[in-house]
Amino acid sequence: MYRLYYAPGAASFVVHWVLLEIGAPHELIAVDLAGGQQKTAEYLRLNPVGVVPTLIVEGAPLFESSALAMLLAARHPGSGLLPVAGTRAADLNYQWLFHLANSVQPAFRHWFHPEDAASADCGDSVKESARGHIEAAWGRLDALLGTQEFLTGSQPAIADFMAVMLARWSRNMPRPATTWPKLAAYIGRMKARPTFAELNRREGLTEWL
Amino acid sequence: MYRLYYAPGAASFVVHWVLLEIGAPHELIAVDLAGGQQKTAEYLRLNPVGVVPTLIVEGAPLFESSALAMLLAARHPGSGLLPVAGTRAADLNYQWLFHLANSVQPAFRHWFHPEDAASADCGDSVKESARGHIEAAWGRLDALLGTQEFLTGSQPAIADFMAVMLARWSRNMPRPATTWPKLAAYIGRMKARPTFAELNRREGLTEWL
Repeated sequence: MYRLYYAPGAASFVVHWVLLEIGAPHELIAVDLAGGQQKTAEYLRLNPVGVVPTLIVEGAPLFESSALAMLLAARHPGSGLLPVAGTRAADLNYQWLFHLANSVQPAFRHWFHPEDAASADCGDSVKESARGHIEAAWGRLDALLGTQEFLTGSQPAIADFMAVMLARWSRNMPRPATTWPKLAAYIGRMKARPTFAELNRREGLTEWL
Repeated sequence: MYRLYYAPGAASFVVHWVLLEIGAPHELIAVDLAGGQQKTAEYLRLNPVGVVPTLIVEGAPLFESSALAMLLAARHPGSGLLPVAGTRAADLNYQWLFHLANSVQPAFRHWFHPEDAASADCGDSVKESARGHIEAAWGRLDALLGTQEFLTGSQPAIADFMAVMLARWSRNMPRPATTWPKLAAYIGRMKARPTFAELNRREGLTEWL
């Protein structure tokens, strides 16, 4: 039994999605981000960074959304979400997952919380720069998805679930990810999975269905 | 035969180190970063982000330093650098590797290239913020390393090689990673590996030996 500490639509979204995909029994615990629950001593004992998600695995806490999605796929190889080690698809899954975690996810942090990157008077400049990094990433993914169905080839892998969570975060930006035609078609393929509707229903989300 | 596009001391350092650890035949190709070779059309065909490292695997290019280090360990399971899937050590390797890639490595990018995060007049503020994030990470690792030898337990894993590369990048900062006593002892254990001396020799590096 896994236990996921989450908030609707936050970085826990990808972990929740993967839990539904692999069909593993799990318990959900909502964290009140607006009320600052993620910075309480009790929560910091589970997650020293003070963010969601935290996943309890065999009684012990773990954090970092991409890591949690990967370890779930690795613990449930029958799900087929993790390509077999030593294949090009497995290499590409690492490449895109780390690229999203290293370049795109931090840019979103700055778009939503520019005070995390510089003082308040620099907020507009931080956001403009973050927007540039995010849009450049969508352009690269759009080019790739012109020649293949998913990021690692013909089957979805963990990197795809991460990419679509991040694309969702762009929905109210000046140029949402769905502005890029091939990327939009890919997002549509991922959103058509039955688990996506179930995920949104469970998290009480009604936007971007 | 792997081919690594690298620059001395850059993010390629961890990939080069893992190549030496696993003892895999490889060819090194130096990229002239000061001369802008990483932004040429020829290089961008290998690496659309225009940075080092790029690794050629079975004739095809891949990028993202953490991803390359992981896929090498996965392709060479005999090296023991990748804990067995489904164990707490494997889960922690994912956690720390993604945490470093997602939170610490981007902060170094801002420390060294603040213009990447905001306009020039915000440079000092970006650097101050980046320094805060980096030092907070060293504090968390130092606390962890008070109770265990390596990030995932009693044996080094890929996350440790990444952590030490990033610690090296802090050597000229106001508070280098080695300022934290338990972290410094850990760094010393990793630097004592014979591959570390060989790596520095091959890259022509004489600082932080």
